[in-house]
Amino acid sequence: MTERRYDPVTGEWRMFATRRQDRTFLPAEDACPLCPTKEGAPATEIPLPAFEVVVFENRFPSLVREPPEPDVAGSALYPVAPSTGATEVVVYSDDHHLGLAEMDVARIARIVDVWADRYSELGSRDDVAYVFVFENRGVAVGVTLHHPHGQIYAYPEIPPRARRELDVAIAHIEDFGTCVYCDVVARERADGVRVVAHNRSFLAFVPFAARFPYEVHVASVRHAASLLDLTDPERLALADIVQRVVVAYDGLFDFPLPYVMSMHQAPTDDGEHQHVSHLHLEFTPLHRTAQKLKYLAGSELGAGAFINDTAPEDTATRLRGVGTAGQ
Amino acid sequence: MTERRYDPVTGEWRMFATRRQDRTFLPAEDACPLCPTKEGAPATEIPLPAFEVVVFENRFPSLVREPPEPDVAGSALYPVAPSTGATEVVVYSDDHHLGLAEMDVARIARIVDVWADRYSELGSRDDVAYVFVFENRGVAVGVTLHHPHGQIYAYPEIPPRARRELDVAIAHIEDFGTCVYCDVVARERADGVRVVAHNRSFLAFVPFAARFPYEVHVASVRHAASLLDLTDPERLALADIVQRVVVAYDGLFDFPLPYVMSMHQAPTDDGEHQHVSHLHLEFTPLHRTAQKLKYLAGSELGAGAFINDTAPEDTATRLRGVGTAGQ
Repeated sequence: MTERRYDPVTGEWRMFATRRQDRTFLPAEDACPLCPTKEGAPATEIPLPAFEVVVFENRFPSLVREPPEPDVAGSALYPVAPSTGATEVVVYSDDHHLGLAEMDVARIARIVDVWADRYSELGSRDDVAYVFVFENRGVAVGVTLHHPHGQIYAYPEIPPRARRELDVAIAHIEDFGTCVYCDVVARERADGVRVVAHNRSFLAFVPFAARFPYEVHVASVRHAASLLDLTDPERLALADIVQRVVVAYDGLFDFPLPYVMSMHQAPTDDGEHQHVSHLHLEFTPLHRTAQKLKYLAGSELGAGAFINDTAPEDTATRLRGVGTAGQ
Repeated sequence: MTERRYDPVTGEWRMFATRRQDRTFLPAEDACPLCPTKEGAPATEIPLPAFEVVVFENRFPSLVREPPEPDVAGSALYPVAPSTGATEVVVYSDDHHLGLAEMDVARIARIVDVWADRYSELGSRDDVAYVFVFENRGVAVGVTLHHPHGQIYAYPEIPPRARRELDVAIAHIEDFGTCVYCDVVARERADGVRVVAHNRSFLAFVPFAARFPYEVHVASVRHAASLLDLTDPERLALADIVQRVVVAYDGLFDFPLPYVMSMHQAPTDDGEHQHVSHLHLEFTPLHRTAQKLKYLAGSELGAGAFINDTAPEDTATRLRGVGTAGQ
């Protein structure tokens, strides 16, 4: 069963992919499907002896270019649709232990280039409305493969959280005449107390109303709707700031801090609102202390209302203490 | 720091309560703060030798009746507000091991009465817009006390997920002239394949577009906006179906399945839309198999787009197999 179903109570589409239940689960390092293929050994997912960055289609996809017909018939109350789109894996490095914190910044800039290329290529498809670049890192956020990698989902419609941000941004323009995220960046630069790191083109900060204790957003200082708006020096600056955030995370409790990284860019089928989105990355680690996690429980899951047990100004101070703020 | 902050990017209020970071964390059974006070021993949270159901204010609250002034000054971009409201603990039983699966249904009906009383009393406050009854069960969803208990939050505004459901329900009435949840209940009764249990007044089913593999919704068969609309026999029927869902969960993998239970009722300050909400409970366990959890990762946290690796019809069949469907 690979199909999408619409929930009439929340107005949200959900993806169903029962084959994913059997996906590879935390294999031993010598059976890693994301490592290069060794001479004489069976091929991994990547039939190359070495590589810099590799992108391939997820073997256990929830969205595909040519989806099967849905198993069930839809209706006015319960619409059903094929799982149109794409799910890709971006392998950051051919070294099982070389992650964003350890590699040269120039190598991270190559990953940024890959993100931009895939955004452009997947986004040009008629059946793709939104390209979502993200990374799940660490078993605490459900990672099933340890090898450093991220993912890209190409959704057939703008997903709920992106839709919400877009609606709020449009309302802000109508009310104030400005991009809300530009206003946020200006305010964070002025206040300074929540800044974690910055360089000429990007600002990393704990959001004023953060959902998670060590949540960090990375935003383009000037208005850019997507990676495609960035110059090469800006792509390098993005690589630099991403590395600084991850280095700060890893130094915080002296272990690689699990996190979800989500990149928010402009929808790719929405010319009218192309200028509204403001490129930013959201890092959401679950830890609230070295031993304790922030769980999404009743208030968050059932009501959508987040409780944060920490002051964003305090967690920003702690992250600045381990990272290197500014250039 | 106890205050609420508004996120201008998503248009959501978030709660901050730094004292919660120090809350009691998985105490040993003989130090349980929710057990009755033993003769000669130091008082627990409940200074009684025995009790049926007890409600008290959370000692580590995120919302309170007389909140302090916020620490930071708000602005047009970053509004700030006091943490007005209430957070209460509902202790289900004075027996540390007697949960919803084990107790007499008549005792669960007393808990339903308590939920209804608190909904009425907290909802009558001018500073409360929405009363949210929920239960977090199990360490996997972040429970910090094992003793069977639930919680009640009284929010000063309608929280995001409830607001969303209300907006969608209003749009459905405009489009079709019917309550969307009444339509869902009728469809689930007709289809039957996703039904987990039912009695004369309530239906338990895996939603057509479930977010979680073993998600179960419990809905009033007739339109009822809140617990206050239920007759005494209907309250007993709700107690009965809640127990059947929990018994099915506990039999599924032969351990008490961790879950979040969220009750959705009418907002308490919204006379115009009082009739729109349809009373229902949402049980969201995280397990996708006996050993594996469904994590909220990139697609869910960053994009708001859920992926489910199971077919709702299959998980409903499995739950029916362990529970007792129908009377």
